[in-house]
Amino acid sequence: MPSISVKGREMPASPIRKLTPYADKAKADGKQVYHLNIGQPDIETPEGMLDAIRNIDFKVWAYTPSEGTASYRNKLSGYYNGLGYNIAATDILVTNGGSEALAIAMQACVNPGEEIIIPEPFYANYNSFARSAGIVVKPILSYIDDGFALPPIADFEKLITAKTKAIAICSPNNPTGYLYSREELEALRDLCIKHDLFLLSDEAYREFCYDGREFISPMHLEGLEQHAVIIDTVSKRYSACGARLGCMITKNQELWQVALKFAQARLSPPAVAQLAAEAAVDTPQSYFDAVKREYEARRDTLVEGLNGIEGVKCPNPGGAFYVLAQLPVDDADRFCQWILEHFAHENQTVMMAPASGFYSTPHAGKDQVRLAYVLNTTDLNNALVCLEKGLAAYPGRRS
Amino acid sequence: MPSISVKGREMPASPIRKLTPYADKAKADGKQVYHLNIGQPDIETPEGMLDAIRNIDFKVWAYTPSEGTASYRNKLSGYYNGLGYNIAATDILVTNGGSEALAIAMQACVNPGEEIIIPEPFYANYNSFARSAGIVVKPILSYIDDGFALPPIADFEKLITAKTKAIAICSPNNPTGYLYSREELEALRDLCIKHDLFLLSDEAYREFCYDGREFISPMHLEGLEQHAVIIDTVSKRYSACGARLGCMITKNQELWQVALKFAQARLSPPAVAQLAAEAAVDTPQSYFDAVKREYEARRDTLVEGLNGIEGVKCPNPGGAFYVLAQLPVDDADRFCQWILEHFAHENQTVMMAPASGFYSTPHAGKDQVRLAYVLNTTDLNNALVCLEKGLAAYPGRRS
Repeated sequence: MPSISVKGREMPASPIRKLTPYADKAKADGKQVYHLNIGQPDIETPEGMLDAIRNIDFKVWAYTPSEGTASYRNKLSGYYNGLGYNIAATDILVTNGGSEALAIAMQACVNPGEEIIIPEPFYANYNSFARSAGIVVKPILSYIDDGFALPPIADFEKLITAKTKAIAICSPNNPTGYLYSREELEALRDLCIKHDLFLLSDEAYREFCYDGREFISPMHLEGLEQHAVIIDTVSKRYSACGARLGCMITKNQELWQVALKFAQARLSPPAVAQLAAEAAVDTPQSYFDAVKREYEARRDTLVEGLNGIEGVKCPNPGGAFYVLAQLPVDDADRFCQWILEHFAHENQTVMMAPASGFYSTPHAGKDQVRLAYVLNTTDLNNALVCLEKGLAAYPGRRS
Repeated sequence: MPSISVKGREMPASPIRKLTPYADKAKADGKQVYHLNIGQPDIETPEGMLDAIRNIDFKVWAYTPSEGTASYRNKLSGYYNGLGYNIAATDILVTNGGSEALAIAMQACVNPGEEIIIPEPFYANYNSFARSAGIVVKPILSYIDDGFALPPIADFEKLITAKTKAIAICSPNNPTGYLYSREELEALRDLCIKHDLFLLSDEAYREFCYDGREFISPMHLEGLEQHAVIIDTVSKRYSACGARLGCMITKNQELWQVALKFAQARLSPPAVAQLAAEAAVDTPQSYFDAVKREYEARRDTLVEGLNGIEGVKCPNPGGAFYVLAQLPVDDADRFCQWILEHFAHENQTVMMAPASGFYSTPHAGKDQVRLAYVLNTTDLNNALVCLEKGLAAYPGRRS
C-alpha cells in the first residue's frame, strides 16, 4: 500500500468538529445536545436571496469568470462603498467562501518558508491554510484579562524578521468576539507601513457589532491602500454558509493579478450563489437590525450566565457571535469530551469547542472553551444549566 | 509597498484564458469570435437538475458536512456502482468542483518536494495545483503520431525515484481526447503496484466515449483498491460547470481520512449544488445518448475539417470534447494571438488554446493547438473556414 503524505497526516484536526463522534454517541444514547461548538447560525437567510435561487432562468449552468461575474462585482462594490471603502469593482476577486479568499490571499502575499504574524487565539483554519501552503504562522498571545485586545505593538516588533510578509487579523474576532478599535488598527497600520507588510483583515463578522460600537476596517485608514487585503464572505452576513461565496479585496493591482492566477486554476466560483448574493445586497437594514438585536440578547444571556457560574470567567465581547470563556477545569479538551460522554442533566448536555485548537502556542488556552451563541435564549439558558451542573460534577474540576 | 510572493508571481497563466484580452479586443472591433478555447459546453443542463434548484425549500442556507451530505453521497454511490465501481458512500468526499478534488488528492498523496508523474500534454491546472502545494510534476511525453496513446511503461520506469508518490492520468483526456484502453490501464496498474504508487484518475469526461468504445477506470481493475483515487465532477457530465461540485473517491480509508482534514479546513462544499446533483443522478439515459450523438457529429465535423486543411494534422480521439491538432505554423502561441488580432474572414475569427501551456517540457507542442468542440456543427464549419483562410494568410506559416 502506498504511503500517505506526511504533510497531509499532520494537518490539524478541526477543534470545532473533533468531538463530533462523542456528540453523535450522546445523541444515539438519547441525549439532547446543545451545539455551541460551531458557527452555524439558526437565523433565516434573507427571503430575497432565496427567491433569487428559486428564480434562476438559465438553461446552461455555466462557469462564471474566475474573478466572479461583472454584475455581482459591480453590485458588491456598492455595498463596500456604502461602508466607506472607496474601492472599484475590479478590486474584488470572488471566491469559494471566505475559506478560499483566505487561502488565496495567504499564498499571494507569503511564500513557502516565509512568515505571517497572527494574534492568538485565532480561527483554527488559518493554521490549516498556512500549513497547506508551507507558510509559517508566528502567533502572538492576547489575554483573557485584557478581553483579548490587540497585544502591544512592541510584541509584534519582537517577532518581525526579514521573513515576515504579513499580519493577519480578524475583527470582530473569531473565536474571542473582540472588536478592534480605531486606535488599535491605526497602530497596526503604522507597523505595516514601517515594515512593508501586508495586513490581511478577515471581516466575516463585520455586520455583528454590538452596543452601538463602530466597525473599523483597514480600508478606512489612509496610507494602507497598497497593504490592506480584505477577506470576506456572505456566510454570516446573510446566514448563507452553504452558499460558499466569499471575496478577497485589494487595491494593490499587482497583488490582485497574482491572486487571479490562483483563482484561474480553479476556474470559477459557484454561479447560483453569485446570483443569490447579488440579490442579497438589497437586503433591507431592518433585517440586520433584527438579527443584531437577537444576537445582542443572546450574548447578554450567555455572558451573564457564564460569569454567574462559580469559577467561570468570560469577557463581554463587542462583536461576532462567539465568546471565549475560562472554566475551572484541569483541561478543557478533556472536560468537553467528558460532558458529552459521561454527563447529562435532565437528559441534556452541551457541545463546546475546546480553545486549545485556536492557539498555536503549546499549552495556551488549556482551560478555555469557545461558545457560539447561535441558539435562541431559551436553549442558551438550558445549555448554561447543563454547563453549571456539569462543572460541579466534573472529576477534574479546579477551584 | 510590500513585495508580492515570488511563488504567486510564478504561477503559470491559464493557456485557455491568456488570449482573452485579444478576443475581447476583436469583439470590441465588431468581429464575431468562435470560442474553441474553453471547455464550456453549450449543451443544456438536465431539466431535473435545474428544477431541484428552483424547488429549494430550506429557510437557512446552511453548511453541509465537510465531506458532503449523506443523502447526496448515498445517491452518488448508486451512480458509481452502476458503472461497476463497487464503492461505499463513505468512500466519497464531495468537493468544490473537480478542481478541489484534484488539489486535495494531490496534497493527501504527495508531500512538498515529492514527485508525481503525468503523461503530457496534460490539463494545465495540474501544474498550478502541484506548484501551489510544492509538488514536483514529472512530465512524460505522448506523441501526436501515436494519437497521444499512453507512453511506453519503460519511459515511466525511467522517471520513478524514491520521491515518486503517484501517477496521474485523465481519460478520456483533456486536452487530447485520447481514451485509455483496458490494456493500457492494466499496464499502469502493474506499475503502480510494483512501485507502491497512487494512481490518480481524472474522469471528468467519462460520459463522453465515442464509436461504441468502452470506458475503463482504475476502479474496474482488481488489485488497485488501495492505490486508485478517482477525481470527478458534475461539470461536464450534466453541463453544470457553474455548480462547482466534484468529488474524490478512494477505498483507501486512511487516505480518505487525510483528505477529510483538507476538506474540513474549508468547512463545506456548496449546498444547493448538492441538492441539484442528487437530482441529476436520475437523469435519463436518453439525455446522455442525445448529447453523445451531438458530440460525435461535432467531432467528426471538426476532425475531418482539420485534416482537410493543407498542413494540418489531427488524430481522431475516442472521447471528451477536445482535439489536439498540429498546425503548419512557426509558433502556435503567436498564431493564436495573430488570428484574433490581425485577421478576419467575413468579419469572423476563431479563438483557440495554444498547446504549449499543456506541456511541461520546454518547446514541446509549439505548433499544436487545443480545440474544444463545444459549438454546433454550423459554427464549427464557419470556424474551420476562418482557420483555413487564416493559416493561408499567416506570415509565420510553415509548409
